[in-house]
Amino acid sequence: MRFFSDNAAAVHPRVLAAMADANTLDTAYDGDRWSKALDGRLSDLFGTAVEALWVPTGTAANALALAALCPPYGGTICHRDAHVQNDEGGAPEFYTHGAKLLLADGDGAKLTPATIRDTADAIADDVHRVQPHALTITNATEYGLVYTPDEVAAIGALARDRGWGFHMDGARFANAVARLGCSPAEVTCQAGVDILSFGFVKNGAMSAEALVFFKPGLADATRRRRKRAGLLLSKGRYLAAQVLAMVDDDLWIDNGRVANARAETIASAAGDRLVHPVEANEVFLRATPAEGAALRAQGFDFYDWAAGEVRLVTAWDTDADDIARLADAIRRL
Amino acid sequence: MRFFSDNAAAVHPRVLAAMADANTLDTAYDGDRWSKALDGRLSDLFGTAVEALWVPTGTAANALALAALCPPYGGTICHRDAHVQNDEGGAPEFYTHGAKLLLADGDGAKLTPATIRDTADAIADDVHRVQPHALTITNATEYGLVYTPDEVAAIGALARDRGWGFHMDGARFANAVARLGCSPAEVTCQAGVDILSFGFVKNGAMSAEALVFFKPGLADATRRRRKRAGLLLSKGRYLAAQVLAMVDDDLWIDNGRVANARAETIASAAGDRLVHPVEANEVFLRATPAEGAALRAQGFDFYDWAAGEVRLVTAWDTDADDIARLADAIRRL
Amino acid sequence: MRFFSDNAAAVHPRVLAAMADANTLDTAYDGDRWSKALDGRLSDLFGTAVEALWVPTGTAANALALAALCPPYGGTICHRDAHVQNDEGGAPEFYTHGAKLLLADGDGAKLTPATIRDTADAIADDVHRVQPHALTITNATEYGLVYTPDEVAAIGALARDRGWGFHMDGARFANAVARLGCSPAEVTCQAGVDILSFGFVKNGAMSAEALVFFKPGLADATRRRRKRAGLLLSKGRYLAAQVLAMVDDDLWIDNGRVANARAETIASAAGDRLVHPVEANEVFLRATPAEGAALRAQGFDFYDWAAGEVRLVTAWDTDADDIARLADAIRRL
Amino acid sequence: MRFFSDNAAAVHPRVLAAMADANTLDTAYDGDRWSKALDGRLSDLFGTAVEALWVPTGTAANALALAALCPPYGGTICHRDAHVQNDEGGAPEFYTHGAKLLLADGDGAKLTPATIRDTADAIADDVHRVQPHALTITNATEYGLVYTPDEVAAIGALARDRGWGFHMDGARFANAVARLGCSPAEVTCQAGVDILSFGFVKNGAMSAEALVFFKPGLADATRRRRKRAGLLLSKGRYLAAQVLAMVDDDLWIDNGRVANARAETIASAAGDRLVHPVEANEVFLRATPAEGAALRAQGFDFYDWAAGEVRLVTAWDTDADDIARLADAIRRL
Repeated sequence: MRFFSDNAAAVHPRVLAAMADANTLDTAYDGDRWSKALDGRLSDLFGTAVEALWVPTGTAANALALAALCPPYGGTICHRDAHVQNDEGGAPEFYTHGAKLLLADGDGAKLTPATIRDTADAIADDVHRVQPHALTITNATEYGLVYTPDEVAAIGALARDRGWGFHMDGARFANAVARLGCSPAEVTCQAGVDILSFGFVKNGAMSAEALVFFKPGLADATRRRRKRAGLLLSKGRYLAAQVLAMVDDDLWIDNGRVANARAETIASAAGDRLVHPVEANEVFLRATPAEGAALRAQGFDFYDWAAGEVRLVTAWDTDADDIARLADAIRRL
Repeated sequence: MRFFSDNAAAVHPRVLAAMADANTLDTAYDGDRWSKALDGRLSDLFGTAVEALWVPTGTAANALALAALCPPYGGTICHRDAHVQNDEGGAPEFYTHGAKLLLADGDGAKLTPATIRDTADAIADDVHRVQPHALTITNATEYGLVYTPDEVAAIGALARDRGWGFHMDGARFANAVARLGCSPAEVTCQAGVDILSFGFVKNGAMSAEALVFFKPGLADATRRRRKRAGLLLSKGRYLAAQVLAMVDDDLWIDNGRVANARAETIASAAGDRLVHPVEANEVFLRATPAEGAALRAQGFDFYDWAAGEVRLVTAWDTDADDIARLADAIRRL
Repeated sequence: MRFFSDNAAAVHPRVLAAMADANTLDTAYDGDRWSKALDGRLSDLFGTAVEALWVPTGTAANALALAALCPPYGGTICHRDAHVQNDEGGAPEFYTHGAKLLLADGDGAKLTPATIRDTADAIADDVHRVQPHALTITNATEYGLVYTPDEVAAIGALARDRGWGFHMDGARFANAVARLGCSPAEVTCQAGVDILSFGFVKNGAMSAEALVFFKPGLADATRRRRKRAGLLLSKGRYLAAQVLAMVDDDLWIDNGRVANARAETIASAAGDRLVHPVEANEVFLRATPAEGAALRAQGFDFYDWAAGEVRLVTAWDTDADDIARLADAIRRL
Repeated sequence: MRFFSDNAAAVHPRVLAAMADANTLDTAYDGDRWSKALDGRLSDLFGTAVEALWVPTGTAANALALAALCPPYGGTICHRDAHVQNDEGGAPEFYTHGAKLLLADGDGAKLTPATIRDTADAIADDVHRVQPHALTITNATEYGLVYTPDEVAAIGALARDRGWGFHMDGARFANAVARLGCSPAEVTCQAGVDILSFGFVKNGAMSAEALVFFKPGLADATRRRRKRAGLLLSKGRYLAAQVLAMVDDDLWIDNGRVANARAETIASAAGDRLVHPVEANEVFLRATPAEGAALRAQGFDFYDWAAGEVRLVTAWDTDADDIARLADAIRRL
């Protein structure tokens, strides 16, 4: 019973079926009809004209987005616990050619206008200091918290005031939107986000995320960078088909809802053990090493996040019976 | 009837089946059992201990290989018509952090020790000139020619003498080996190649190539670079499964043979029109614009390579009847 | 008697004196009064508002200029014998983060609109090919030829039509202008040049070149890049003072005239031995190895440029008697 | 009366004289006799065979050193207040091609083995996290504290154990050694330092620092990187001459002693106002804005370091009478 990461979940049957349907001879790269349909389908979803590019990983999506928003000699403000800072092997620095990540604080890996200003305003405006050019937030955050549309909009207003680009890492965007009950546009383009890394791989796809550009003019250079990074798969139709299958008939949001509900069940059982409120599909639990061992002895696999703290992640395919067993086991600790 | 590129071919049913079989919960990234099996399976294939990493594109494979062999301040010798120089959107320069490609000549995009020396020896050994640190050849070449084991070994000996790394771009390695009738080792590790980009995507896979390291110590840094480039797919098992399926029961070489045979049929029909000998799955044909138009009018799609010259590429799934029709059409031109 | 390179010439006494005058306590970096005077003085010289930055080397100047004009995923057209391609140790690739140099032809290292178009038009406009974003010419060229204002303007018009940035490497700009008898503006800003590397080191300065920006908006990012490259000397006043001393009372052009006259004397003696017309301060001479040895035996030092060809360079401080001796020696060969 | 930074100090007359002596025709770049003397002279100074390269700025020296010790996909541990992190405009990231700076803590910008381990051990050893490959300390630190030979040796032992390169930023190395009364070797090569940025510009030189390589094999690639960065001045003899003049007859350490003594006089006057112990040539003083204004009204110029805190820096040329006046003014606050 695996609660290690949604990264390792299986691929949804409708995604697999869509890939099989794409198994015909067609144009290479992104000239096929699936790839060409992305702009339209995601424009429909967001209710505004967007450009959308498939990429095979979330790390690539994030790094391409930062490269589109921040010059090599600039910096991007992020939370000090952000995935871009800690878990991408230096991909942002690679793609931006060495731009700095400028670290800010906030509970549950959430930035606020105040903490962003603390970081930015401590940087003297001279050539010796790397200046902020962009900021990035993760929604849902690395600790499973959710930014509301109002919270995003407040940050977006700050970004606009300062002339910064604004990126959202949406590796768990479906979980966030499922929680918020808002439209995907309300928490992105309507709140000032310029580029969204729209995650599907943790949520039922195999190997496709979408970079969604709300701000015109950014996608063209990114198409060049995508090729230059060796990310332009020659059989792109199999990636585009995944994205389309996830968007079709709301599969993405339905899957997000299932994962959230699974996490909620665990949260209910966890009570005071919760380190953070559970707003998406991640549960951070206080547990002694002995308690962790006890859970593992019962067949539950998960991540030791920090001393006395474990992380349990649910996904679209997390078995309801497994969840019931896990909740039970936690209650009995 | 599409002869545009093997890039756009369909995925082989056995590859698709292997991917479906991998659709279970497992460890993320490359910790799964498929990924872990790669070293062993490719060591068996090459008859020596190798390390093998999956990557989603040939461009990524090539660029990672060059980054493993050439420092940012160095250069890599390649043919002036090489894919790395002309068709990868600057990926080698991105991954090597700006190392230069040092261009050499040779008929049919084939380098020889003599042409390599011409390029290298023209570079004064001082800090003002970028010095060669590696060389790369493509087998089969961009014009469908094949390097024999002896030819590769002669180049490998030169590389060893000069202390250069030696990479082979094997986007169409299967076609080359099918033509040569040698073992894959004879034309690579036994001939001095340090790293092979072992291509599968043009030959029946969907989204997986293998980087094969014959020289110990190069793979570790490449694992870091692969992650840093956003190329480490979280569900790596679906890529590893493709590579394994291609290697199983000689699917890779069987597919290569089919494609070569299809090309040979065209070649037989082409006679004096051939620009290059046909040794793999590419046919370069002299054809006037009117002749090209005549072929297109009969439903054949292909690439206008240069003035008065067209390129026809076959693949594992090229239909034999289509080939017969094409050969016939060419004869009638 | 050294004709190896103007790079190694002495520093003009007026430059040394100006540096000594700057030896007072002042603001660090470029906040001092000398550095602040650069924009004004060079605006006067060019008769238009420019921004000007000192940098310590011509290689740095060129590389910063290309980085200002060409994105990492783009390319810059240059002559295949250009200094940026062959003699800067890969600096353009370092500063541009791996942009490609796209090589074009032309006699005497001079590009023409036709040869530029030949290079550019061979590049298909797709993401697989690196696209031109800028072009750079050297005036005087690496072979001592001079672009006239009309020739520069024709190239500038092409650059403007294509939307490319346009840089001039003016390592020997003084020699070119001295030859042309035009104003410095006629052959740069009035001819469409966006950035000039205005060289002083080969012409009497010690360690200061000026980057002159004719196009607004490019200097700010370059100030950042200059710092980021470790090129922002803390005691910048000693560099600014050099530039000002060179511009004061026409020292730059006077020095250029002297060097040109010295070269002209050699050229007169050389007759049929000249490989290129002598239009600046470089003389390329046909000479057998035995003839080269004979000259060296008489105390003349110079560079073996190619088989049967030597290069002799004059500078502002080349002794007239040495020149007479050299001319005599050449006549006697 | 300028206490803003030692960066802006004048050039020592013996340095200027040495530069004037170098004003003869000689070989370009670093082939001249001054540049060739550096290895020997610095080997003498350190009592061991070293290689030494001149560079024009401390930022360039530091960034080249980090590039020699840390691959692009790695990280370098430094103090979070280190110059490399905060004051070099991103130069380390530029030269290392995006390696990360991994921040550690410590009073007065001094690292200890314990704080270094805190940072390093929090980084999981997997491809998702950037791994430490090097560490850098500043001696004297950014707050004017000094690492003793024992303190450096303890850090050096940790670096050796972990296989990390070890760099010392010695922008104020003379001040540190003057304070310590040890040999320069005791606090560098004998304590495990691999590369020293030996600073001269803050201490009487004009535009030359020395990169000193204690570990064989690192200098060759750095020579390439120096050229590639446009840092290889064609008239290098004027830089080498500065270094030689600073080392001759102990000018460097004598100048360091003078600056330290001047700071000590201020410190004696400052009493409880001192934020850090004064061990070199920097004095950090608690002062209200009104007090700061009062000092400025008397003609003293300095840097507002933080709220309620000012920085006063002395140099080799700080006037003793000015110091007396400043000490007096501080006592009267």
